[in-house]
Amino acid sequence: MIKSTALVAPAFRQLLKRRAIRWSSSCAAAAQTHTPSFPCVDAHAIRESRILASSLPRFSQTPSTPSTDSGPEPPYARPSPLSYKVYHHPSPFQLTYSETLPSFDIAYETWGTLSPTRDNVILLHTGLSASSHAASTPSNPAQGWWEQFIGPGKALDTDQFFVICTNVIGGCYGSTGPSSIDPTTGKHYATRFPIVSIFDMVKAQFKLLDSLGVNRLYASVGSSMGAMQSLAAGWLFPERVSKIVSISGTARSSPGSIAMRHAQRSVLMADPNWNKGFYYDDLPPHTGMKLARQIATITYRSGPEWDLRFGRKLRDANTSGGVPSDESPRTPTLCPDFLIETYLDHQGEQFCLKYDANSLLYISKAMDLFDLTLPALEQLGMRPSQQLFSPSDTSQAVSHSKSHLPPARPAPHLPELAEGLNQVASIPTLVLGVQSDILFPVEQQRELVDALRMAGNSQVSYFELGGVWGHDTFLLDVLNVGGAVRGFLS
Amino acid sequence: MIKSTALVAPAFRQLLKRRAIRWSSSCAAAAQTHTPSFPCVDAHAIRESRILASSLPRFSQTPSTPSTDSGPEPPYARPSPLSYKVYHHPSPFQLTYSETLPSFDIAYETWGTLSPTRDNVILLHTGLSASSHAASTPSNPAQGWWEQFIGPGKALDTDQFFVICTNVIGGCYGSTGPSSIDPTTGKHYATRFPIVSIFDMVKAQFKLLDSLGVNRLYASVGSSMGAMQSLAAGWLFPERVSKIVSISGTARSSPGSIAMRHAQRSVLMADPNWNKGFYYDDLPPHTGMKLARQIATITYRSGPEWDLRFGRKLRDANTSGGVPSDESPRTPTLCPDFLIETYLDHQGEQFCLKYDANSLLYISKAMDLFDLTLPALEQLGMRPSQQLFSPSDTSQAVSHSKSHLPPARPAPHLPELAEGLNQVASIPTLVLGVQSDILFPVEQQRELVDALRMAGNSQVSYFELGGVWGHDTFLLDVLNVGGAVRGFLS
Repeated sequence: MIKSTALVAPAFRQLLKRRAIRWSSSCAAAAQTHTPSFPCVDAHAIRESRILASSLPRFSQTPSTPSTDSGPEPPYARPSPLSYKVYHHPSPFQLTYSETLPSFDIAYETWGTLSPTRDNVILLHTGLSASSHAASTPSNPAQGWWEQFIGPGKALDTDQFFVICTNVIGGCYGSTGPSSIDPTTGKHYATRFPIVSIFDMVKAQFKLLDSLGVNRLYASVGSSMGAMQSLAAGWLFPERVSKIVSISGTARSSPGSIAMRHAQRSVLMADPNWNKGFYYDDLPPHTGMKLARQIATITYRSGPEWDLRFGRKLRDANTSGGVPSDESPRTPTLCPDFLIETYLDHQGEQFCLKYDANSLLYISKAMDLFDLTLPALEQLGMRPSQQLFSPSDTSQAVSHSKSHLPPARPAPHLPELAEGLNQVASIPTLVLGVQSDILFPVEQQRELVDALRMAGNSQVSYFELGGVWGHDTFLLDVLNVGGAVRGFLS
Repeated sequence: MIKSTALVAPAFRQLLKRRAIRWSSSCAAAAQTHTPSFPCVDAHAIRESRILASSLPRFSQTPSTPSTDSGPEPPYARPSPLSYKVYHHPSPFQLTYSETLPSFDIAYETWGTLSPTRDNVILLHTGLSASSHAASTPSNPAQGWWEQFIGPGKALDTDQFFVICTNVIGGCYGSTGPSSIDPTTGKHYATRFPIVSIFDMVKAQFKLLDSLGVNRLYASVGSSMGAMQSLAAGWLFPERVSKIVSISGTARSSPGSIAMRHAQRSVLMADPNWNKGFYYDDLPPHTGMKLARQIATITYRSGPEWDLRFGRKLRDANTSGGVPSDESPRTPTLCPDFLIETYLDHQGEQFCLKYDANSLLYISKAMDLFDLTLPALEQLGMRPSQQLFSPSDTSQAVSHSKSHLPPARPAPHLPELAEGLNQVASIPTLVLGVQSDILFPVEQQRELVDALRMAGNSQVSYFELGGVWGHDTFLLDVLNVGGAVRGFLS
């Protein structure tokens, strides 16, 4: 790498010079020849000048109060540093991919009351970018990311259960991640942070459970990446997990979802501000984050929802890429013209300074790497602790849900996934999927159900939801998602 | 805009200075502290230094011979400037959105023989980035983008038909577009090029037909954006189009497809090299083009195809982001690890210097703007020339294909689309859709069919294809797409 850096640096410097010259000359030219205006592009430079000029926080481990102007989107609310607890693990922690962390912190919040026998604990796992603030608490009354699902009489009934939610390892809301200080150097880890896996996130959570004296979970519950963790918890600690809830997740990331995350990582890492991850003392890659979030938002919702919500409506005449404009919305431009575009733009804008770019990269990669097929587990040196069913059983063991037909062409890896999931064959599991989800398509939900049943799990509940909310259904559909979870847990 | 440019420029200059300093200091730091390497990011700078150092052509109107190493992907072959004909329109040309072009060129190629009565002409419309080189010719033997569909006995049978394919207005393969020289200034149009519509592309094509003495088309045929043009040709010149073929297209761009194109435009326009479109005398926005093409590729194929083709296979040990690497593929990185990632990377890399960035923006926007509902047409001042059916007919007029059920919730704009399509109610039309297409979903194909029938068109043929090739099926499925087209045209 030193070689290629050396190769490029002179050309890069020359380019920077040329660009600076070009910028000035375009300014001069603009006055003379009416260079077209692009407020959606200027928005990036204006945001940057705002960051440079103001006290607007670059990302840090002490995020400010979440904004409440994100419209109908569920806010991924962030706790203040005083509103969550921190478990500190003082000794080296072995990671899946050979490296160790010298120590780590896990930020967590709780709801409800721990029973005297500590047998009423629900561990709630988060999606990619969420904090431990799943619901409001006395010390942080801001709405949490699963506010409507946690509380007395709700899906996670705090009259009955003690709910724990953590910020994952690799995250940026109080748990150790790339934005944390490496105790061995006194500097931000940045991209010297080791690659973490979904298993590492769960193992770290169980160190927290150990510290709380919780031996066995009443349930491991999660949606999206949280569903991966939920399954991984059952796999790693089958004797410590009584029930598993997997909502819009998967046991094996597909190339389609890897592709969509790859596109996000690519645009983020191409932002010069990213600077190979070493931006903590400089400007953050806010443009790359905005662009990545736009792509992510496309995968979180669905076309049918947008048909209903936006159709082909044009943007408001007074905004264009977040910048006031005098142009009539009836004259098309290369910048956003349609409401769907300003929606994506707004989603990206809201997110781009709220979350750490390196955390996004590491956690996104952890999702790609998740694979519970037996060969993949064995490659990691992970041997199942339970007796495997005989491979010859597979042809007989498939028992399709009453709610879906057998796949026309069963995935070739289905038996291997069943072998991997044999480890959780005795844990009652709720699988919930959404037909309009394009990130974790319904076929993956059915595959998970088929593999669990093939593995001999006779206590698999499966619900398939309609509706137009796509992957984000788990954040929005309190009635159906909440109802299914509440029913399964009661 | 002058105002916001003035606001930003000093901050921007300051940033450029800081970035230049940071780059040097990171180089120094790298030697001391083993900065992690990111070959997938260095690839952009290496490509840039290659462009700066070599004679590797920046995009121009004289593209070089297409590379043939794009693997199993259909190459969008480019003609040499001597291998296509050019129609020059010397007088001002009125565009949909109020501006005029002072003159224009249309590049075109032909196959087969024009009949003495000039009644055997098929006008073949292209997708977004294709040239007029749909099939090999004596003067350009390179494979065309629809090579297997054009020739004696093929879908477009050159024993019977005279096939014409043009490069669209706004394109960059010989037709007038943003990379062309504005005759009024002697400089590249760049983003001073006016916004063009699908209607403008078709009107320009009909000026070419006029010059060839072709009064009436045997058929207007197109896929993807070409299908939009195919419908638009029927709408603009109903008396000059005998048959319409629409493959994987739409009569009304949906917010879902606008979203995906918006994401591409956003990443491209955020590339500093794009420079508001004025890059023709400088470095092209190759990184933005690469990133945009990665996103586009995701929309062109399908998850199920990638499941079969790539699964979770890891990349070759010897490549990472196009740059040789010594890393073991078994150690995950933040750069591509999976074969699906290197596939997307390769697709972007192949494309990023082949096509003009501004053409991509203009043509992508033209697709977004396409809407054949009556209110949208009327907003553009486009009045149908034919008698409209009475709106009261709509409830009775729906006649669903035998091959698909009525939609559970008919789109509210269906009657408006039927009103718009009344203009083509007497033209036999073939609609062909693909169930795995995520860019022009099968629901849009059904909507088009329903609207045509609702408009009173009694000669609508509809085929719905399975398979895993997604939107690109029209390039790949010679048997089924070719068979349907050949059957309809014969």
